[in-house]
Order: sequence, then C-alpha cells, then structure tokens
Amino acid sequence: MSTVTCQISISLDGYVAGPDQSLQDPLGRGGLRLHEWLFAADRWREQHGEVGGESGVDSQVVDEMTRDVGAYVMGRGMFGGGVGRWDETWRGWWGEDAPFRTPVFVLTHHPRPSLSMAGGTEFHFVTDGIHSALEQARKAAGDREVAVAGGASTVRQYLAAGLVDTLQLHMVPIVLGAGERLFDGLGDLRLEQVRVVAGPTVTHVTYRVPR
Amino acid sequence: MSTVTCQISISLDGYVAGPDQSLQDPLGRGGLRLHEWLFAADRWREQHGEVGGESGVDSQVVDEMTRDVGAYVMGRGMFGGGVGRWDETWRGWWGEDAPFRTPVFVLTHHPRPSLSMAGGTEFHFVTDGIHSALEQARKAAGDREVAVAGGASTVRQYLAAGLVDTLQLHMVPIVLGAGERLFDGLGDLRLEQVRVVAGPTVTHVTYRVPR
Repeated sequence: MSTVTCQISISLDGYVAGPDQSLQDPLGRGGLRLHEWLFAADRWREQHGEVGGESGVDSQVVDEMTRDVGAYVMGRGMFGGGVGRWDETWRGWWGEDAPFRTPVFVLTHHPRPSLSMAGGTEFHFVTDGIHSALEQARKAAGDREVAVAGGASTVRQYLAAGLVDTLQLHMVPIVLGAGERLFDGLGDLRLEQVRVVAGPTVTHVTYRVPR
Repeated sequence: MSTVTCQISISLDGYVAGPDQSLQDPLGRGGLRLHEWLFAADRWREQHGEVGGESGVDSQVVDEMTRDVGAYVMGRGMFGGGVGRWDETWRGWWGEDAPFRTPVFVLTHHPRPSLSMAGGTEFHFVTDGIHSALEQARKAAGDREVAVAGGASTVRQYLAAGLVDTLQLHMVPIVLGAGERLFDGLGDLRLEQVRVVAGPTVTHVTYRVPR
C-alpha cells in the first residue's frame, strides 16, 4: 500500500501560516517568509514555470518531496476559490499548467465535476470526507506515494486520524507570534526522527509517525 | 566581550515545559520527555555525578554547550526553593556538588548571601534585574561565554532585550499540546541558522540572534 507523506514549512514557534489569512493573503501576515527557501530553489521554480533560482540542498529536498508522489490530497483552502458553492471559473491558484502532474483530490462540501489541466494534473472533488479522499488517492497512486499537500487543517486532520506515515518539517528560523499552528489539538503525539538535512537557511527533518 | 549563549530543548509545537508546573513537577506534565536525550548522554551523567549513558553525537553536544562557559545566569524558578523570601536551607536542586563549576547569577527579588558549593560552583543572588546579572556574569566569565541557563521566562526576557548572541535549540520530536512556550510575546524574531547537528533522536540547531 502506498506510503502517505506530508511536508510543510513551520516556524520555530510552531506556525505554518501567519495571522489574518484571507483570499488576498492566503498564507497570512508574514506567512510568505515560511516559504522563501522554497521559492528560491531552482527545482521549485522549474516546477512552477519560472526560471533561475538556486541549486543545492534545498533544491534536492524539493525534488525528493515531489519525485515519487502518485497522487495528492488537499483541502479546499489550498485549492482556493473561497467557501460555499463553487464558482466554476476558479480552476486553482496555479493556472492551467498546474504543477502536480498527477491526480489531486480536493476535500470540499460542494460537489463539482473533475478538471483536467495541462501537464497531467487532474483535480477531483471529494465530498465524503478524508478517508474517502485518501482511498481514492491510494488507488490513483498505485505503488507511488500519496502526499497530503495542505493546508494546515487538512494535515492536522490526517495526523489526528493516524493516517500519515512520514512527516517532513522544514524548520524556518522565524518567529511568527500568531497564526495557524500545525499541532494544535493533536494531544501528545510522539514522532520518530528518521533523517535530518541541513539546508543553508532552514533544516529539513523527516519523522516517522507511529500509528 | 564574552558571547552570550543559550541552549534549550523544545517540542515541535514550541513548548519548553509541560503544563501544570509545580514544585513537585518543575518541568510540568510531560516536560521530562524534552530532556530524555540529555539524561541519556554520558557526558551529562558524568557532570551530574552519575555513571553510564551513551557516548556519541548528543554527548558531544552536551560537552560543547558547557565547555566554554565562564558564568551562568538563571531565573529563580530554575534554582528552585519556591517564591517569596528565601528559606536559606534551600541550596539548589543539585545538592552540594552542583554541576556548574563557575559563578552562577540567580535572578531574584529577594536578597540572599552568596553560596559556595563543592566543585567551584558559586551562586550569587541578583536583585537588580537582568542587565545587572548579565554585567556581573560577563565580569566573572572574562573571555569565556556567559550562558543563560533558563528557565523559559528568563530566556525570553534576555531574547526580548536583544542580549543573546547564539541560541541552540534541541528539537525534540514530541508534541506537548500545552505548557510554557519559549517564543511567546517576542514579536517577529528572525534568526540565522549557523549549524545543524543530527543526534539519533533529536536535532540540535544553533542560531545567531541578530541584535
């Protein structure tokens, strides 16, 4: 059965998004600073149709975290387009050439037909919960990984349900002071450190999550 | 002028002590789990008059974090003995052979004569604030480091005042869910990662703290 992975950037005080998240500012105040290492990586830029950037350890981490993924699961907030019934002109933040290049299962309370994008990304909208979305993602992924893409509340739900096998945290040396915390309400989780990679500005630590 | 250092174990959700701290349970519920890596290190055990333990990366980290320290500053909670006027029979948690072997400046609102312990530890009680304690520690340390030993609120006060040069976090893969958070109220601090050491169970990251 495919491994379920998750990777997310986190501040030293445990935030994965800043305060006052909105459609205009989806990562919240200061939240973009969590992802500066990512936006600078040439592999990420290439995946997102941009040029330039830096090669090196961070770029290798980006490559590894996407290379073996056969399907993604994401929350509606990450797909975007606001809440409530769908405005079907919204086709994600990424434009027609979405960077996933696999099936992506979007959790929502509102049904919508699937979308086929350029480059192989297919968005499927799942209205019957996280277990169903994961089951569909597993079928689509075959032997490859299923990645829980985000946002924070989706990751938290899969962690709380004991459905994540490995969690990679990119530890960003900033203090946000407010915003969305990854681990709130998860009780006394104990993870097992399996790998540490030091980037030039952030540390990437992979944990096994006991079932 | 001597470098001011600080090292502290922190959970993935940013806690440095568990909830419900008390005289009986000074690290709070679950807080001991933050220090299991430390208690297992042979260098720490040797410093605390115990035998056995594991050599290896964690033990080297313990050695480095104590080797060059010429004086410590600590809060009254870390020295112990409760609040209010001193019960002078209390001479610290560590017994007569305290492990510091340097001058230690204890922040308190209540004056008390200095204590000379076996092995070279001297406790001095400072009633006129964190700047004064640091100044006295700098004089005592000479060219060696001054270490802010803890607890959390003392570390937070020195960080907030911009008086810490390097902060080493031992990132322990547990989620405490409640307790004392290291970075609360520090605004949007941005640190600079300078060194990453992977222990077998925890990751030790050293940051430079911009003034």
